[in-house]
Parts: sequence; C-alpha cells; structure tokens
Amino acid sequence: MIDKLIEGIKATKSPICVGLDTMHTYLPKEFTPDREKPLKSIGAALFDFNKEIIDAVNDIVPSVKVQAAYYEQYGPAGMKAFKKTIDYAKKRGMTVIADVKRNDIGSTAAAYSTAYLGGIEMGGETVMAYNADFATVNAYLGTDGVAPFLADCKKYGKGIFVLVKTSNPSGGEIQDRRMPVKPLYMTMADMVDKWGEELMGDYGYSAVGAVVGATYKQQGERLRKRHPHMFFLIPGYGAQGATADDIAVNFDKEGLGGVVNSSRGILLAYRKEKYQGMRFWEAARAATLDMREDILNAFKRSGIEL
Amino acid sequence: MIDKLIEGIKATKSPICVGLDTMHTYLPKEFTPDREKPLKSIGAALFDFNKEIIDAVNDIVPSVKVQAAYYEQYGPAGMKAFKKTIDYAKKRGMTVIADVKRNDIGSTAAAYSTAYLGGIEMGGETVMAYNADFATVNAYLGTDGVAPFLADCKKYGKGIFVLVKTSNPSGGEIQDRRMPVKPLYMTMADMVDKWGEELMGDYGYSAVGAVVGATYKQQGERLRKRHPHMFFLIPGYGAQGATADDIAVNFDKEGLGGVVNSSRGILLAYRKEKYQGMRFWEAARAATLDMREDILNAFKRSGIEL
Repeated sequence: MIDKLIEGIKATKSPICVGLDTMHTYLPKEFTPDREKPLKSIGAALFDFNKEIIDAVNDIVPSVKVQAAYYEQYGPAGMKAFKKTIDYAKKRGMTVIADVKRNDIGSTAAAYSTAYLGGIEMGGETVMAYNADFATVNAYLGTDGVAPFLADCKKYGKGIFVLVKTSNPSGGEIQDRRMPVKPLYMTMADMVDKWGEELMGDYGYSAVGAVVGATYKQQGERLRKRHPHMFFLIPGYGAQGATADDIAVNFDKEGLGGVVNSSRGILLAYRKEKYQGMRFWEAARAATLDMREDILNAFKRSGIEL
Repeated sequence: MIDKLIEGIKATKSPICVGLDTMHTYLPKEFTPDREKPLKSIGAALFDFNKEIIDAVNDIVPSVKVQAAYYEQYGPAGMKAFKKTIDYAKKRGMTVIADVKRNDIGSTAAAYSTAYLGGIEMGGETVMAYNADFATVNAYLGTDGVAPFLADCKKYGKGIFVLVKTSNPSGGEIQDRRMPVKPLYMTMADMVDKWGEELMGDYGYSAVGAVVGATYKQQGERLRKRHPHMFFLIPGYGAQGATADDIAVNFDKEGLGGVVNSSRGILLAYRKEKYQGMRFWEAARAATLDMREDILNAFKRSGIEL
C-alpha cells in the first residue's frame, strides 16, 4: 500500500493528502439540517460534500485522509458518511488514510484493526467494516497494542502511521521529555522503525510510517536523517502554521518520504477572498494546486526534485 | 458524574464495572448472522445481548464500560448497537463509561468530546451523538488535546479517565521509561491530577480520573498514595490475570477510589463449567456476584470496608 501511495505521489507530483475533516459548519450555507432527523441529514450532506471534493482533486493528489472525529460527532449516521467517503475515494483511485488514532491492549487493538484495515472471516468471506488503506495509531500502549495492526498490514497489504511527533502546541509535554538521553518521540520513532522492518516496500519505505507534525521543523529534520526508511504523514501545513519550507526537511532528495496533509485550507478555501466566486469544489481544487506549487517551489529551493 | 458513580458503588457495595466488549463470537450459538446483511444482523444481536446483561446486573453493579473497538468492527450498524447500549444502560440507572481512548490535537479532540460527552448546539437544542457519562482519553498529545474534554466535563457534568498505566504486557515500554527521575506514567498521573483540580466532586474525588491496570500492583499502590483525589478505572481483573488482592491496593480505607472492570469474565461466564446450565444473563449475574464477593473479601483482608 505504501508503494501505491508513492506511485500516486510520483504520478501527480503531489506529496499531498487532502484532509476530509468535514463537519456541518463547513458546508455551504444553502445547507440546513433537517429538524426531525438532524444527524441523518448532516451525515448525508457530509458525504455529498466529500464526493464533490474527491471529484475535484482526485487527478491532482494521490490521497485523502478522513478524520473520524468529525464524523463520530453525528453518531452512526456520521459513520455511514465516513464509510461511504472511504469507498468513494478508493473507487476514484485514491489512497485512503483513516485518521482514527486508535489504541488499546492487544485483544482490543485487534478489533480496531479489524474495523479499519482488516475484516471478519464469516462463511468463507471477509466482511470489512471500513477497509481503509492506512490507519493512524497511537502507540502509548507499546508493542502488543500495535502488533494486531502489523498483522493486518501484512495480511491485507495495508499500512499504518504511528504518532511520533504531533503537530499541536502541547505535543511536547510528553513527547519531548528526555528519558534520560533522548526525547520520548525519538524512542517512539525507534520502535516504529523496528515494527516496520518486515513491511518494507519497493521504494525503500516501510508500510509502517509515522505522524510527524510540520510545526516542529528541527525534530522533523532529525527524524528524517535518523530514519531514512520511514514514511511520514505530515499534518500542520496551513491552518496550523507550518510553511512549505518547514516541510521540505521531511523529504528525501527525490521528493519522497512523506505526504503533507491539508484539511481546512482546502475544504474551506471557498470562504477565502482569493477564491471568491468559485463553488466549494472549484475552490478546493484551486487551493490544492496552489499548495502543490508552494511545496514544489520549496522543494526547488532545497534542491529536491520530485 | 463522579459523585453519581461513587454513590452507585456505595449503594451496591460493588466497585465494579461490567465491560460490554461484546462481539459476534461471544453470542450464544443459536445466533447466526444474516447472509445478506451480516453486519446489520450482528449489530442488532449485540444490542439484544447487552440488554439482557444490563437487565441482569443493573441492581448489583453501578456501571458498565462499553468498549467501542468491538462495535466499530461492524461499521455503522455496530455503532448503532453501541449507542443503543449506552442509552439503555443509562435508562436502567447505570453510569456509562465509553471506552474509546480517543486523542487528537485540540480542534479535533473537541469533535471527539462532542461525540462522546457533549453535543452540537443546533436551533436552540443540543443534539448528542452518544452522550456517555465518562469517556477514556489517551493524553500522548498533551494538554491541548485534553482541554476540550475538560470543558465538556464542566459544561455537561461528565468525567474522563486518562490512560496512565495500562494493563497490557507491553504497557511499560513507553509508560515505565524514566525521564530522568520518574517514569512517564507518573508524569502522566501528575498531569491528570492537575487537569482534575477544577472538577472535584463531593466525595473527594475528581471527575478527571485515570486508567490504572490492576496487572501492575506496585505501580497502582504508588499512584494511590501519591494521588489521593484520583479515581481509577481498573482493568486487568480476571482474564488478564490480576487478583482481587492485587486490586485492593488501588482503594482507600472506605473502599472508594476506583471501579474494577471485568468484561470476558462476565460476558462469557455462561461458557464456564462453574455456571453450566445457566442462560448467558444468569451466568453473567452469578459471575458478577462472585466477583463482588471476591473483591469484598480481599478488601476485608486489607482492612478496607466499603
């Protein structure tokens, strides 16, 4: 799966992932929830919105990241939109990252992995609940909480991104603590590297990747040098403040090694002055193209050629 | 909410939480999934199973813990069962812990908190997706990832349990690392204590509690002494190997300070020789009463009186 993602990045020249953090307040103002069944009507509208975005960007970026939190707010109806979004993006040839940050003890982690990457063997068939290509995983519980995901990565050709250095302001409270020689996030990265050894793809990157926030440039640079086979899912561009130049340090000289996520910057582009007069999907496409140009220019300044 | 839980514990003399980790393989063998719509039929059966368990134990224990992972395996139909289970347990007067171990950056954590504890303000009403009493939270992302949950705890009178020392074998890989003076789990507990200061209840315990696995007795004992106002959610009894005597160290002299979870030990009691001939809900009730006796006896041996 990591190879399919890398091939998509090469083909589109976009190390970009469109973050479908869709919520009801992001929808165009024409939308008003049904009074009787608000959650159901929102769920349906979220999928319709996502479908237009996917149609508008699937030829210029290789992947989408669907953030479960936003859908979970609307109960089972939201999860239906989450599922339909994953199915539709895959149908349009995109690599889908289920951003679920799941974590638990071994036996329960197995259920999470079944939900997002694997499936249930039943009467000779495998019934899959969500069937994403990648899932994000929080490894605070250590190896036995990650092992079931690794097993499904092997069995179903999937991948995971483990939280290493997150993009938020408080991320360092735990992750940057020295223990005692190096900070925790580096220990976590060492573990990720080890977990990924048996899942190496054809381009020199493992299907077990890491979430590395672009908002901490120095740490990203350090991780890139220390872990040349680790593929990064990179949040923090745009709304969270990281620039394309901050991000360039996460890539190798061929422009591989990561995929940069942007959610609000693309989904809500239609509300920005710059894209005025465009429909939301037209604005999303224009903003994605602008983001690609921004990143490729930063690559050029750093001597990177994708 | 922490006060309601403590009052329930006092009234039933059961510091116990029945873990509804219900999955299709736990159902009595009479159940076979529908061939056409397997996930939907499983979802319906999970709720029916849980309903019987809740009816059988609601007068002898104060709380249930509903583990989201097991329901997520069945897609939106599973989440419908998750929701209906929460609603039904609350209707029967039980305190409901949504064991979701959610975590993300601030803006996204807010969506998770909205999903499980809070709601969406819409047309003068608050529409709630799941409306549990407590949620479990992973705080690897630090304060800004926890803050939205704390805000909803205050606004809606809810509570959370933050992962401090988990019950699984690999938990120590990250959590026991010294950094440099004390291990990470103790630092996490210090943060939990601070987060809980403004959410103190009438019995001296905060609505911001901690998950503390019973499988690590020494660490539990240390945490109990260091954090007298922290309420523990305690997994690890039974199937995971911790005994009632291991667990007693987590309580104060009045038998308060924690709630012990048992999932498989209760849900699958009907398959044990000891409870042979009983229907699954009768076996669940009998196993819960046995667990209570086991814990109260261990309390007595430790000079604790609930």
